[in-house]
Amino acid sequence: MTPGGDGLLEGDFRLESCRGHTHLRRPFMSQTKEPPLMEKIVSLCKRKGFIFQSSEIYGGINGFWDYGPLGAELKRNLRETWWRAMTRDREDVVGLDATIIMHPAIWKASGHVDTFADPMSTCKSCKKLVRSDQWWSLMAEQPWVQSLAGVADVATQTFDGPALLRWAEKKGKQYAPNLALVRNPQVTLSWLAERSATSQTHPLNAEEFFQYVATEQLPATGLITPCPHCGGELTVPRPFNLMLRTHTGPVESDDNIAYLRPETAQAIFAQFKNVVDSSRVKVPFGIGQIGKAFRNEITPRNFTFRSREFEQMELEFFIPPDEAVRVIHGHVAEWSESADLSTPQPDWGWDLWHRYWVKERTAYYAGIGLGPEVLDYHWQKKEELAHYARACVDILFKFPFGTEELEGIAARGDFDLTQHQKHSGKPLEIFDDELRAAALKLTDEQRRDFIAEVQEDWNDRNKSREEAALFCDRLFKGFYVPHVIEPSAGLDRLALAVIANAFTEVEKTDAKGVKEVLTVMKFHPRIAPVKVGVFPLLKNKPELVAKAREVYALLRPHLTSFYDEGGSIGKRYARQDEAGTPFCVTIDFDTLGEKGPELKDTVTLRHRDDGSQERVPIAELLGRLLPLI
Amino acid sequence: MTPGGDGLLEGDFRLESCRGHTHLRRPFMSQTKEPPLMEKIVSLCKRKGFIFQSSEIYGGINGFWDYGPLGAELKRNLRETWWRAMTRDREDVVGLDATIIMHPAIWKASGHVDTFADPMSTCKSCKKLVRSDQWWSLMAEQPWVQSLAGVADVATQTFDGPALLRWAEKKGKQYAPNLALVRNPQVTLSWLAERSATSQTHPLNAEEFFQYVATEQLPATGLITPCPHCGGELTVPRPFNLMLRTHTGPVESDDNIAYLRPETAQAIFAQFKNVVDSSRVKVPFGIGQIGKAFRNEITPRNFTFRSREFEQMELEFFIPPDEAVRVIHGHVAEWSESADLSTPQPDWGWDLWHRYWVKERTAYYAGIGLGPEVLDYHWQKKEELAHYARACVDILFKFPFGTEELEGIAARGDFDLTQHQKHSGKPLEIFDDELRAAALKLTDEQRRDFIAEVQEDWNDRNKSREEAALFCDRLFKGFYVPHVIEPSAGLDRLALAVIANAFTEVEKTDAKGVKEVLTVMKFHPRIAPVKVGVFPLLKNKPELVAKAREVYALLRPHLTSFYDEGGSIGKRYARQDEAGTPFCVTIDFDTLGEKGPELKDTVTLRHRDDGSQERVPIAELLGRLLPLI
Repeated sequence: MTPGGDGLLEGDFRLESCRGHTHLRRPFMSQTKEPPLMEKIVSLCKRKGFIFQSSEIYGGINGFWDYGPLGAELKRNLRETWWRAMTRDREDVVGLDATIIMHPAIWKASGHVDTFADPMSTCKSCKKLVRSDQWWSLMAEQPWVQSLAGVADVATQTFDGPALLRWAEKKGKQYAPNLALVRNPQVTLSWLAERSATSQTHPLNAEEFFQYVATEQLPATGLITPCPHCGGELTVPRPFNLMLRTHTGPVESDDNIAYLRPETAQAIFAQFKNVVDSSRVKVPFGIGQIGKAFRNEITPRNFTFRSREFEQMELEFFIPPDEAVRVIHGHVAEWSESADLSTPQPDWGWDLWHRYWVKERTAYYAGIGLGPEVLDYHWQKKEELAHYARACVDILFKFPFGTEELEGIAARGDFDLTQHQKHSGKPLEIFDDELRAAALKLTDEQRRDFIAEVQEDWNDRNKSREEAALFCDRLFKGFYVPHVIEPSAGLDRLALAVIANAFTEVEKTDAKGVKEVLTVMKFHPRIAPVKVGVFPLLKNKPELVAKAREVYALLRPHLTSFYDEGGSIGKRYARQDEAGTPFCVTIDFDTLGEKGPELKDTVTLRHRDDGSQERVPIAELLGRLLPLI
Repeated sequence: MTPGGDGLLEGDFRLESCRGHTHLRRPFMSQTKEPPLMEKIVSLCKRKGFIFQSSEIYGGINGFWDYGPLGAELKRNLRETWWRAMTRDREDVVGLDATIIMHPAIWKASGHVDTFADPMSTCKSCKKLVRSDQWWSLMAEQPWVQSLAGVADVATQTFDGPALLRWAEKKGKQYAPNLALVRNPQVTLSWLAERSATSQTHPLNAEEFFQYVATEQLPATGLITPCPHCGGELTVPRPFNLMLRTHTGPVESDDNIAYLRPETAQAIFAQFKNVVDSSRVKVPFGIGQIGKAFRNEITPRNFTFRSREFEQMELEFFIPPDEAVRVIHGHVAEWSESADLSTPQPDWGWDLWHRYWVKERTAYYAGIGLGPEVLDYHWQKKEELAHYARACVDILFKFPFGTEELEGIAARGDFDLTQHQKHSGKPLEIFDDELRAAALKLTDEQRRDFIAEVQEDWNDRNKSREEAALFCDRLFKGFYVPHVIEPSAGLDRLALAVIANAFTEVEKTDAKGVKEVLTVMKFHPRIAPVKVGVFPLLKNKPELVAKAREVYALLRPHLTSFYDEGGSIGKRYARQDEAGTPFCVTIDFDTLGEKGPELKDTVTLRHRDDGSQERVPIAELLGRLLPLI
């Protein structure tokens, strides 16, 4: 028995559509001669102890992954960099560490009980479950599509629609008899022609083709949607809630249902009042949290990218509503291309705060080795946004399986706190002295004008005149529900991104002239699981070993270090290269002073990324290495 | 609706019996004039942001607690000290970070599915649930017992059995008509007389009295066990499994039941092979893990001590079986009072390794401020041990509500790996070169003698001669399943222990002669959430503020620092005392050189524990503080 449906095997990296919106173009071919990059990465992860399949000796459990010795250190380092950047190094952010199981009313208030669902169909023939919004990507990755000669060209990523159509008219009839493109090839062909005439951006890929079939062809022809796996009939999609459920207390009943949190953010809103009351914080300020979350994904995929148990790093940064800024400062600073985002200013509104956090998070990624060349941004369009959201930017990373979301930075207005205020009956407003003092200075006429402006403004957001007036009334007394900017990152995705980014293959020719491909994991030194390897040149020379142990003892309290005396120096370097250790120190006969006093107590410092070596006095080692990490 | 049964209110600190064995005597009265210590601690925890009730704005959820800004930092520091001591500072331990949800077969193999249960009864009248092995403590803490005049004496903790009996015969008939002591007072009285004549250790307490009633009186008289809450009839106890259940995958069925792990240890056993294959480890070595675990406690209690969601820090340290040590070294080193436990030796057997870890863990606790004066040890007796365990020591902390377990250190033999080998069908033996080489040197006679000795030895442990011979056969070939020593600590318990240990009240007389009681949290500097507070003497002097910001910027990259300019210096010191900040730095006019150049660029360094102050040059601050943390 493999819980959670079909087992996820190594190398099972399928394309996927992303909940919410479609991302950039991806390669869709995986059957090439070279083992695909992701398979190499998964294999290295297991071999070196970065990532194992959970419960592997029992056949695994779909959507769950464990971090081995190197992975656990890598993850710890990533957590630490986030926590430092987001809380310790800032005066305006505090931390929280809340439980995974919370009162179910929280998920009612947040909307997760009612709407945190994916549409799902079941195949009436093979009984497999299909996420409706993944239908086209599942179709595109079927072996019968992938293996069609002439259908796709790896080099250009061109998808040959007409070729597929020809195939579908013949062999396809057998395989997917219900498929609309078979029944109505003329319409499909004319769409293909039209598209190739108008598309400026990129050639057609299989996923895009099937998306057209699903969203236009099938509804227009009234035909059923065929199962991507067997061609059978899929049921009408129904919503499938993604929260994992359990029961607390000794009796399982509807009264004690509890959910494993699907995100860490809600705990921050639920404890907002306690944090405000117990800590010396004043808006603008943030609450950060790192912790596990669970989503019962219908189809976990892409290694650790979309799993059922994962870790989030979320910040809720609370800011005053723009209206409060306007009362206090008479204006709200506007963003422009030349705006200085380096230091937050009191007259910033949500737009500048939002852009500030995009900049901060970008700087964070650059600081751990993910620079602009591997990141991308998706500014969500109005129609993509949740109804309460003002803006949302996804920071994307160029994964081997496609450019996918690493972090979302959303301006969520006061939606969350307002929901919890309503559902809990507890006031979640804060009081702002400065606001009240500023409001007191307004004339009656100024107040009336202000209210009228707010009413007009809110009208665009479908809020009533009464709501706006009530809000202004509280505002003039100094009270408001803070708005929030939410930079929400996935730790497992980040770990996978830095692993993929570090993965480098180097061709070397050994002494016998044999070529071999070596893997070097070029992690940024700050996040590398091991910082320095310490080796005696030979393990059977007690003086070398003693000196190496001395150097190891010197470094270890300050840097995660690894002592190794097994095998040739070349092998030991290669092992550390695969582990991503940025520095290696070798103690040789020169260190012992055998070649003269000028080299005594110096060691070979070897740099992972270019293999370069230099002589460094032992006394200077720490001073050289510490600034680099 | 409060999920998980009745809400746990602040101050609801009831007595408890401990699963497995009864600990030291505890006070059982909580209605004294002074607010009990635990209530003060809980109140401080909420007020200062150490610990909040989870989902408090929704009425809370029983058995779940959140860590606020100070608590989150405290917990992070504790995690870090454990991880450092147990993995980074050692060459023989690596880390793991596994999922909470694992394949359910793991919990079948470990025995949790079948036997991880508490006995539970339901009251037929009030429908409340009662853990059978807590019946006596629940009885003892009922208000009607607590409030009986003359029944208990707080000072001596004497429990007056006959007085209760007299009460029970009159008023008690109404309250608990089924209570055996009412029906059969003569037997009870004679037991009381006998006990007071023979007991040397301590006067009778209510819990002990009711334990006698439950285990001897009731069964002897054939009377039913009354509900501690209403006196109604309790059902026969049935086992209640403590694992929280959920389902993975889109359809809830028996095929995809999953459990939230009740301990982190099993993941280590399940990934043992992967770690051995991927890391350069050789027995003896350990795998450490920190993570959340869940137990569906029937009655969560004692603040965060027994909760439903908690965090564990577990090490599985794998050692060779004693028989392997004997083959290699010809003997197994024996423990004695004078044994040197400082450095592990190759000829150690499980007993020395077990004692070594007790010593290591004791040193760990001393290093974070929990010295011998607040710890105790419980060496489990043979009859208390699980059938497979060789030995188990509980390290206990003197909590305000009783002396309770902080960590268990168990010698578990090869039980766990053998179980997983059997259930998964995957070999979990390791191969030991040295063992094979040593075995090859044995003569046939020596081998026969060795096998005979093992067979005799194993006979005492109810293992067959065939099993012993098979084991020896594998052993001579160099193979064995490692044995394990398991130091298993609770992070939340540890956090509560260091909070309780730090809690100190100091009486102060202010300038007006008014006495007030101040709280000082005397955390060890290594674990204190904030290390240093930085204050300008006055906030309206820009030179002071600028200098203070400079000092703050100097310290912050190295030490968690807190800048505060609000209120009098005395108030700011008091706030940091309550937060447990060990050092405060004040920038005053002397710092600016206004009293002469000799004090220029010096600051007041104030020490939390004795309130002492000294002048320190800014340039020397880091050098002074860093070694202390």
